Amino acid sequence: MKKVVLAYSGGLDTTYCLKYLGVEKGHEIHTVLVNTGGFSEEELKDVTEKAIQMGSTTHVNLDITQEYYEKAIKFMVYGNVLKNNTYPLSVSAERVFQSIAIIEYAKSVDADAVAHGSTGAGNDQIRFDMIFQTLAPEIEIITPIRDLKLSREEEIAYLVKNGVDASWEKSQYSINKGIWGTSIGGVETLTSHGSLPDTAYPSQLTKTESSNITIEFTKGEISGVNGEELPQLDAILKVEELTSAYAIGRDIHVGDTIIGIKGRVGFEAAAALTIIKAHHALEKNVLSKWQQYHKAQLGDFYGMLLHEGQYLDPIMRDIEAFLHNSQETVTGSVELALMPYNSQVLGIKSKHDLMSNEFGEYGEVNKLWNSDEAKGFIKILSTQNKIYHAVNKK
Amino acid sequence: MKKVVLAYSGGLDTTYCLKYLGVEKGHEIHTVLVNTGGFSEEELKDVTEKAIQMGSTTHVNLDITQEYYEKAIKFMVYGNVLKNNTYPLSVSAERVFQSIAIIEYAKSVDADAVAHGSTGAGNDQIRFDMIFQTLAPEIEIITPIRDLKLSREEEIAYLVKNGVDASWEKSQYSINKGIWGTSIGGVETLTSHGSLPDTAYPSQLTKTESSNITIEFTKGEISGVNGEELPQLDAILKVEELTSAYAIGRDIHVGDTIIGIKGRVGFEAAAALTIIKAHHALEKNVLSKWQQYHKAQLGDFYGMLLHEGQYLDPIMRDIEAFLHNSQETVTGSVELALMPYNSQVLGIKSKHDLMSNEFGEYGEVNKLWNSDEAKGFIKILSTQNKIYHAVNKK
Amino acid sequence: MKKVVLAYSGGLDTTYCLKYLGVEKGHEIHTVLVNTGGFSEEELKDVTEKAIQMGSTTHVNLDITQEYYEKAIKFMVYGNVLKNNTYPLSVSAERVFQSIAIIEYAKSVDADAVAHGSTGAGNDQIRFDMIFQTLAPEIEIITPIRDLKLSREEEIAYLVKNGVDASWEKSQYSINKGIWGTSIGGVETLTSHGSLPDTAYPSQLTKTESSNITIEFTKGEISGVNGEELPQLDAILKVEELTSAYAIGRDIHVGDTIIGIKGRVGFEAAAALTIIKAHHALEKNVLSKWQQYHKAQLGDFYGMLLHEGQYLDPIMRDIEAFLHNSQETVTGSVELALMPYNSQVLGIKSKHDLMSNEFGEYGEVNKLWNSDEAKGFIKILSTQNKIYHAVNKK
Amino acid sequence: MKKVVLAYSGGLDTTYCLKYLGVEKGHEIHTVLVNTGGFSEEELKDVTEKAIQMGSTTHVNLDITQEYYEKAIKFMVYGNVLKNNTYPLSVSAERVFQSIAIIEYAKSVDADAVAHGSTGAGNDQIRFDMIFQTLAPEIEIITPIRDLKLSREEEIAYLVKNGVDASWEKSQYSINKGIWGTSIGGVETLTSHGSLPDTAYPSQLTKTESSNITIEFTKGEISGVNGEELPQLDAILKVEELTSAYAIGRDIHVGDTIIGIKGRVGFEAAAALTIIKAHHALEKNVLSKWQQYHKAQLGDFYGMLLHEGQYLDPIMRDIEAFLHNSQETVTGSVELALMPYNSQVLGIKSKHDLMSNEFGEYGEVNKLWNSDEAKGFIKILSTQNKIYHAVNKK
Repeated sequence: MKKVVLAYSGGLDTTYCLKYLGVEKGHEIHTVLVNTGGFSEEELKDVTEKAIQMGSTTHVNLDITQEYYEKAIKFMVYGNVLKNNTYPLSVSAERVFQSIAIIEYAKSVDADAVAHGSTGAGNDQIRFDMIFQTLAPEIEIITPIRDLKLSREEEIAYLVKNGVDASWEKSQYSINKGIWGTSIGGVETLTSHGSLPDTAYPSQLTKTESSNITIEFTKGEISGVNGEELPQLDAILKVEELTSAYAIGRDIHVGDTIIGIKGRVGFEAAAALTIIKAHHALEKNVLSKWQQYHKAQLGDFYGMLLHEGQYLDPIMRDIEAFLHNSQETVTGSVELALMPYNSQVLGIKSKHDLMSNEFGEYGEVNKLWNSDEAKGFIKILSTQNKIYHAVNKK
Repeated sequence: MKKVVLAYSGGLDTTYCLKYLGVEKGHEIHTVLVNTGGFSEEELKDVTEKAIQMGSTTHVNLDITQEYYEKAIKFMVYGNVLKNNTYPLSVSAERVFQSIAIIEYAKSVDADAVAHGSTGAGNDQIRFDMIFQTLAPEIEIITPIRDLKLSREEEIAYLVKNGVDASWEKSQYSINKGIWGTSIGGVETLTSHGSLPDTAYPSQLTKTESSNITIEFTKGEISGVNGEELPQLDAILKVEELTSAYAIGRDIHVGDTIIGIKGRVGFEAAAALTIIKAHHALEKNVLSKWQQYHKAQLGDFYGMLLHEGQYLDPIMRDIEAFLHNSQETVTGSVELALMPYNSQVLGIKSKHDLMSNEFGEYGEVNKLWNSDEAKGFIKILSTQNKIYHAVNKK
Repeated sequence: MKKVVLAYSGGLDTTYCLKYLGVEKGHEIHTVLVNTGGFSEEELKDVTEKAIQMGSTTHVNLDITQEYYEKAIKFMVYGNVLKNNTYPLSVSAERVFQSIAIIEYAKSVDADAVAHGSTGAGNDQIRFDMIFQTLAPEIEIITPIRDLKLSREEEIAYLVKNGVDASWEKSQYSINKGIWGTSIGGVETLTSHGSLPDTAYPSQLTKTESSNITIEFTKGEISGVNGEELPQLDAILKVEELTSAYAIGRDIHVGDTIIGIKGRVGFEAAAALTIIKAHHALEKNVLSKWQQYHKAQLGDFYGMLLHEGQYLDPIMRDIEAFLHNSQETVTGSVELALMPYNSQVLGIKSKHDLMSNEFGEYGEVNKLWNSDEAKGFIKILSTQNKIYHAVNKK
Repeated sequence: MKKVVLAYSGGLDTTYCLKYLGVEKGHEIHTVLVNTGGFSEEELKDVTEKAIQMGSTTHVNLDITQEYYEKAIKFMVYGNVLKNNTYPLSVSAERVFQSIAIIEYAKSVDADAVAHGSTGAGNDQIRFDMIFQTLAPEIEIITPIRDLKLSREEEIAYLVKNGVDASWEKSQYSINKGIWGTSIGGVETLTSHGSLPDTAYPSQLTKTESSNITIEFTKGEISGVNGEELPQLDAILKVEELTSAYAIGRDIHVGDTIIGIKGRVGFEAAAALTIIKAHHALEKNVLSKWQQYHKAQLGDFYGMLLHEGQYLDPIMRDIEAFLHNSQETVTGSVELALMPYNSQVLGIKSKHDLMSNEFGEYGEVNKLWNSDEAKGFIKILSTQNKIYHAVNKK
């Protein structure tokens, strides 16, 4: 009897997998749900009960939110990572760490195989398979949905036949929730010009009067909100609470999938977008010009590889070392104004602020040099251009 | 008698220069104002009259807005150029082309010297001097404000003594306007945490009900608004009109000045920010992954050098060639929702759209490959990581 | 009857394909050999005869050397492209243009399918398939060697059975020759520490006395040798003749294959390495600092994608536009000393040389500025570091 | 009485400074020589005696070779740093650490001022001044040679007048020696096409018969030669001894100076070039594709800023963190063949070698996938190009 660890969410596809692999294949199924901050206690309890009821030998819920923060969110903040300057990788990054947690769990229980419910048309299958194969080449990968290519109706019919009478009404929007944001797919996101209705977003505008928020950072990591020191996850949740009331952080992203086609996805990520905006604002005051330049370039690449499931490439560790080191002086607080659908940076305070009046006020007073020194600076700064244009004059 | 071309705006500093260079130095002054879209006909008439009245031998107003578009704005749109992901280089880029126009004018009238009113504490002196020295090393540069370091009061006293009784009340905010945005300096921007009051911004919120706008692009250049084909400058002005009513495009930027200190400046640039947002959205659908990756990196560098007045470095021409070539397929229309202080991309339409349903729907249906092919893809895509982790296993 | 265009070299694998597809599959075979400078007239005649004799309905030899120069070699010189700073992409680039020529030929003769003899273990299958599929998705791809996984012995046995009695002695080294270099595989290159014997290299050291060579470039393209103006291909051949006598340009490269494993290959590319060395030397004198910086980075990426067969990605056209534009002033001559296994740049001459004594001699005499100006320059150049270290002092 | 620390080498310029600052200015002079591996014990003794004899109150020789290794050479090896792919920054990097040692010494002895003998025409003044000003803004900088612009003859005349009768014959070549290489300036390097005669190089060809060398690396640092474990400095000296006998590592570099003009300099750096070549070869076997790609780009930038004296920019620390992390698996040995003026990598051995036969032989045998999987890989790998060309077909 094959021992199979199945990534299970309680949805139609993974329920089908559970029944199919147990009944048709005769495998011993051990379901696992990996929570990255998107499930409530109640939901987890429901999923657990359902898994056992559907025939799973055991079920575990693994909460890896803290680990996800340590290994990914932290670096996405350090690098101000937004895919194509838009999308905070809410789901992409999450999948990677779910994959790692699942395969490590499979190894810990000596599973023969690991199963997931992804189709053959998307990114998730790639993230799952690549991480599974790399971290446990000896464990078989089973993917019934990808292999059988059943329609929704066929899956339901099979379940009904096997005594599962749950209602499988398709919700209008497919929602994927984690601590770093929620992705939303719907009929509108299947084309390039449809836009999601307000109701498709989990959070709704409940506050219209503007208010301010102050976010504190310690060496690049969020460490407090509105003057209150908080553990990082709590701080993220606090920002989420305060900003999602303004329906901040909604957008639709068109991106390059790992398989080369363009994919479009709606999302809301109030905390992620607000924290990155604040962090970036602080960096503008405390980092050197070249730090900012290279951080942007490496952060962009880091986000691309993370999105593509290439988290295990050793270049990712090297970039993390770079990003970590760059945060030495990124300590201080950032104040933002919150308003419906939008936020605005008001200013920052930091003991590392390089915009210090001791050294002169830009454009007004210069305390570090005099006019002749400025002229000398300019004269020599333009030397190469001068020679170039003199030599290459028509 | 030395023939001096003076960059003249009608403000206190350049008026001081005009009087001082004429009266004290006995030079023959020819004033010039270079308009990049920030002056009305009336303002230009006033400046002209004032210049002559103050003793300028001749005065010309040069409108270089179209040239500024062709040589800079176009490429800033191609490259989605926002300094530190924030500031559309409204004033920085403008100065470069004003400098070029001034020095070419000076050469055309056989001037012995060219004068500007910049202080020794900012970026403008560098942009002016470098471009002047490079394009006309034989022409002397005269900078009374930088050299004499007079206070505002001393300048006024001198002017009054010389019969200039205009009122020189200091406006609370120093405003710099061009077609690509308006910069705003005030007491609040001298520190890292002051924020500008609503009244500091030239445009005010006059429309609160949301509406949509459609921007058309042809090979990367704006070519129409809301279905109406328009020349580029008219299109920019149309977008400005429609978006500034929502007070869109306000922000405060902290940036690295050419002299190495941090500078902070408020700005409003409704058209610039909206057009770049729309252009970027269109590119996400029509460019390849690597085009977007390298465009972002080169666009960032291009903006940095443009900001620093290094427009004449030949690398800038090379990057322009890259950017120009990348726009071959950037043709289509982008719809955005406008709302107070904010806009949101709704979708795009383009005959070059790579998100085409003929080839499959991301995550749902795959028409280009089957499940086994997907598995083969994933297997080989992870080869290097697999070998790396197998070889370097603890 | 299926009309199949077969890429045919006269070697064992493609001869097997020819027989197998004709005899077993009953296809009408049209063989094609694409020459990129590696075949002599005599060799081409032999291949032609052999093809017809083996049953090919028609055979053509397509000489695309000039096109290969225009579309790839030129840009590899512009970009000083050496994979991992070592390998001039001799074979990698060639394959791409062979693929294009083959698929265009197949389209021109209304072929139903196109066949190649690559195995399933290397890069070539990827280059062939990707280019074929992209440029002619409607044409079937047939790959007997990859599909049947026959051993050398089985292939020979099959051929003998079908009346082909040619001797198929395996040469000790597999050689791949084109105008931009020759790759050499052997038992030594299958491990990380074996080195090829002298005799494995096609060219042998025949000259030991040092001599000089002068290579002329016009806008980045080779245009003459030793004072004689020559068409580009002739100039390359001339350099090859003069430098290969010194056994210059030998090396072994370890690189990342498209499939993710490391591959090792010996090569000799006397002309390619000498021309790139000379071109790079000239650029150091005529390009600005930033041109060189970005050229190196983009050239590296260009080489990587070309190697990986991604020539059809539009980013390649954008980089080519950049590289082309950067060559505006790369005109002049470069003198090198040739000696056994090595060359040394002696100096360059160019009317665009930025190292002009009119502007001062480095470290000795400065004609563009005085000491005070130098001090002013330095003072301001260090502003950001000064502020950083003052603010962040322990 | 002003206490002045003077960077003193015993040469004409610094001897002039010593006399001039003591006699004419009445300062108390404390001379310091900072050795980065270029001075013998005897030379140091001579300089010490001479300094005291010329009137210096105290003289110290600071040997910072180990520190220079730890803070710069190590990272230049990690990053395979060659300026413009040519010059190992032999002198450029050295100056930075000499500057730091001098200013720290000045602070430790409570000096009022620090003096150096650089002219106003080169890079060294910039490196000295910038580092001095940044690390000790309170200490005055004195530069008699730059300020007085005396000719060689005037300096000698002054010294003779003050009783210094040493012979100051100008050697034909100015030589600058350190552990990471020797730079050579002469009349030939003042133009773009002069080449140095053999005799200008300190090392001469003494060995013509080829021999092999094996260099061991541990986490990117040289740790042994020919099987003998050695401390890093000893290993470098050993490589220097073995390779300089072949006159390896000679070249002439044309580079962009900090002041914008092109400078040309001869150098010999047998150890530096051989070690970097070996290190780079090892990395090709043990690093992932993307590690190599980004290392090349960041290494290039690191070299540029180090050359320009911007060592104190915090971006340098971030890049060092990246480079350090990337060396985790760069352990192994590299064998090279040495021959006159040249070396050739023969192969590497490493337990981290990713070119492992367990996973298949490139182009021959594939153990990780089958033909169908390869086809699937290729099919999906070309998806974006396929869609692009289908959508944008003329």
